[in-house]
Amino acid sequence: MKKAVFPGSFDPLTLGHTDIIDRALPLFDEIILAIGTNSSKKYMFSLEDRLHFLKETYKNESKVKVETYKGLTVDFCKSQNAGFILRGLRNGQDLEFEKSIGQTNYKMSGIDSIFLLSSSGKAHISSTVVRDVMHHGGNYEFMVPDVVRKK
Amino acid sequence: MKKAVFPGSFDPLTLGHTDIIDRALPLFDEIILAIGTNSSKKYMFSLEDRLHFLKETYKNESKVKVETYKGLTVDFCKSQNAGFILRGLRNGQDLEFEKSIGQTNYKMSGIDSIFLLSSSGKAHISSTVVRDVMHHGGNYEFMVPDVVRKK
Amino acid sequence: MKKAVFPGSFDPLTLGHTDIIDRALPLFDEIILAIGTNSSKKYMFSLEDRLHFLKETYKNESKVKVETYKGLTVDFCKSQNAGFILRGLRNGQDLEFEKSIGQTNYKMSGIDSIFLLSSSGKAHISSTVVRDVMHHGGNYEFMVPDVVRKK
Amino acid sequence: MKKAVFPGSFDPLTLGHTDIIDRALPLFDEIILAIGTNSSKKYMFSLEDRLHFLKETYKNESKVKVETYKGLTVDFCKSQNAGFILRGLRNGQDLEFEKSIGQTNYKMSGIDSIFLLSSSGKAHISSTVVRDVMHHGGNYEFMVPDVVRKK
Amino acid sequence: MKKAVFPGSFDPLTLGHTDIIDRALPLFDEIILAIGTNSSKKYMFSLEDRLHFLKETYKNESKVKVETYKGLTVDFCKSQNAGFILRGLRNGQDLEFEKSIGQTNYKMSGIDSIFLLSSSGKAHISSTVVRDVMHHGGNYEFMVPDVVRKK
Amino acid sequence: MKKAVFPGSFDPLTLGHTDIIDRALPLFDEIILAIGTNSSKKYMFSLEDRLHFLKETYKNESKVKVETYKGLTVDFCKSQNAGFILRGLRNGQDLEFEKSIGQTNYKMSGIDSIFLLSSSGKAHISSTVVRDVMHHGGNYEFMVPDVVRKK
Repeated sequence: MKKAVFPGSFDPLTLGHTDIIDRALPLFDEIILAIGTNSSKKYMFSLEDRLHFLKETYKNESKVKVETYKGLTVDFCKSQNAGFILRGLRNGQDLEFEKSIGQTNYKMSGIDSIFLLSSSGKAHISSTVVRDVMHHGGNYEFMVPDVVRKK
Repeated sequence: MKKAVFPGSFDPLTLGHTDIIDRALPLFDEIILAIGTNSSKKYMFSLEDRLHFLKETYKNESKVKVETYKGLTVDFCKSQNAGFILRGLRNGQDLEFEKSIGQTNYKMSGIDSIFLLSSSGKAHISSTVVRDVMHHGGNYEFMVPDVVRKK
Repeated sequence: MKKAVFPGSFDPLTLGHTDIIDRALPLFDEIILAIGTNSSKKYMFSLEDRLHFLKETYKNESKVKVETYKGLTVDFCKSQNAGFILRGLRNGQDLEFEKSIGQTNYKMSGIDSIFLLSSSGKAHISSTVVRDVMHHGGNYEFMVPDVVRKK
Repeated sequence: MKKAVFPGSFDPLTLGHTDIIDRALPLFDEIILAIGTNSSKKYMFSLEDRLHFLKETYKNESKVKVETYKGLTVDFCKSQNAGFILRGLRNGQDLEFEKSIGQTNYKMSGIDSIFLLSSSGKAHISSTVVRDVMHHGGNYEFMVPDVVRKK
Repeated sequence: MKKAVFPGSFDPLTLGHTDIIDRALPLFDEIILAIGTNSSKKYMFSLEDRLHFLKETYKNESKVKVETYKGLTVDFCKSQNAGFILRGLRNGQDLEFEKSIGQTNYKMSGIDSIFLLSSSGKAHISSTVVRDVMHHGGNYEFMVPDVVRKK
Repeated sequence: MKKAVFPGSFDPLTLGHTDIIDRALPLFDEIILAIGTNSSKKYMFSLEDRLHFLKETYKNESKVKVETYKGLTVDFCKSQNAGFILRGLRNGQDLEFEKSIGQTNYKMSGIDSIFLLSSSGKAHISSTVVRDVMHHGGNYEFMVPDVVRKK
């Protein structure tokens, strides 16, 4: 069974995230959307909201599971028998950050990272930009799935 | 009337900023230097000082106005009937950041961002570097206009 | 009168080019689409075809003129009383190339380059990719304007 | 059946290539190493040699097939019922190039590109560097598999 | 006497740091490993631990001295009669950051920065990644020298 | 004796080259400006002219020698007992190219590459841009040393 973990804060879930998840579905038998809980970080949305966004968006997709985890992503992958980490790439900056994390994860655990590039027209979307537009009362709706629009 | 908003913290105004403003003057009928007020951010200089730096430096330039604003930059542009946002670019990192913000602003409002690249010899100047040199009592004067040197 | 020269080979004209030209129209009184003729370079389309693509696409746009030129772009700008060079930017690679050319042009002539970033969904389009797809009989139509599709 | 095409010139096959192929094997049921034949390009090694390098290196790997093709990579993928294109990424430059090709391929055909980042210690290897060292009689052996060393 | 200052937080010392220091030893008569003390920054390891890591690792290397300093790095260089600042570069991001700092330091003091690129296989190592792995109880040992492993 | 080889085509010598050479002089006892002769490449200036540019510019600098060489740069370094290769870096693109070459050279020979970043105001200068301006009869003089201006 080919399982991948797609780790993130999903604060909130965006169409940038779903672009990667949806296109990766044919590649894996199961994709675990995993929210890493990090007590020292502040989030705009509660853990409950963020889990709801994921579960509601993929409620009809049997290949997708939603979990939370603590500690290292590679340790969580092992606990779930997941052989891969799924990641999206928007630009050269993302790549350098991901290369450092991905190569360290591979050396620590042998678990490899699989990348998809953002689709054309989606590379500008990030949770950071969405939160900023939300914070200032702007129109963020074209960047997030229905469930987040209704929030 | 071709109006552009040049948004920033200007903490402090540097010769990197004035390089872009001065070279953009022939392009627009009016350039609004706009300080976004953000209560959650800490600044080295007070809002009054930062406004003074801008007003004093451009006091003899009728095309330049100085304002403060809250909320989204595109909303402020609309309130000022400004059709463009003026931005400077120093390197590839700036570009990826600006691309995400600029494309989101354009999708939200149809207001486009116009870019000038830093002049040769100015690309290393940033408010962050100026503040660090100031904080440690170093010579920052070659990076800022007169009014900031006198501060 | 605010005039800009938009230099290129336009081999062929793409929706990446028209994205930049169309969004720059409100900024200038006149935009000169200028094909630099370079005997040592090989083109897929003849000069006549390339001129036709430009003229046909902008036949109803009074602000747009189409010219050819030899030699330095800044010399052509002076001959046309154009104060600006208009350029598009897709990514960090474009920026480093444009910075070297733009700063040299500015030092040589005082003529500045104005940049717009590709719209979201257009940054992947380049004449090089279009020619490659054309060469191999693929579907390039979603990347070029009507007049090139009919070719 | 999850099939991927790994297109390239393989002039010659390097440990950079095999790094990506070997790590992608657990992800797919079949990987087709496909040499695109391009009459206008000059190669250091003949097509026969390049095919031999691939076949010899993966002779004991049932998941790997070796083919040649003409025309568009996505058309070749369709002819082989391959749903994915497999690619390696070394740095930001590779990414911008691959983004333009990958997004165009996806828009043309719906066939997606899956990326792995070079392993730590392999990102400096490229056929271009290997050919240059070979051309000048230097030690290239640490960058290529056995079959190329014996050539 | 050719002296260089290698400034950093060394929180903790990694094999990325020692890669640069060891390869620079033949270039200088003395390399001063200098910890900048910055009261506003929070560190994982105490100043004593960080000094211990450096001193213990280079106790048998007469060319290496260990110091702490406050204020500007160029002022510390002058106080030590050091004509150079030694820095490592992993990727394009590091370069843009270092270019801004290095050019400002040179303009302020005439003290130049000398760069070595990370060795192949070391570019993914950073104190940030090491701290994250340590924080989550993972295996960081392959990224740090002995003295840090024993901590 | 600390010797470095500064390899290049110097077609022609520019102020970008001399910026790096002059700033590296305090670091080495001898710098060998080495023109790699490559029969398959076409040059604007003859080998004689290019050697003349170097010799004339550094005729009063006893630390600088001028040579030509064939084959691998590291082999030439060994023949000259030079322990280092000196290189300049303008931007992220240069870095990725240099990283691939530098890491391969180090693995082949143990000879390390030392880098200086272009000075502020010099990063836009390249032989390619100078040749283009020369070819079109433009003013290139602000980018090259006297001896090339007189050519």
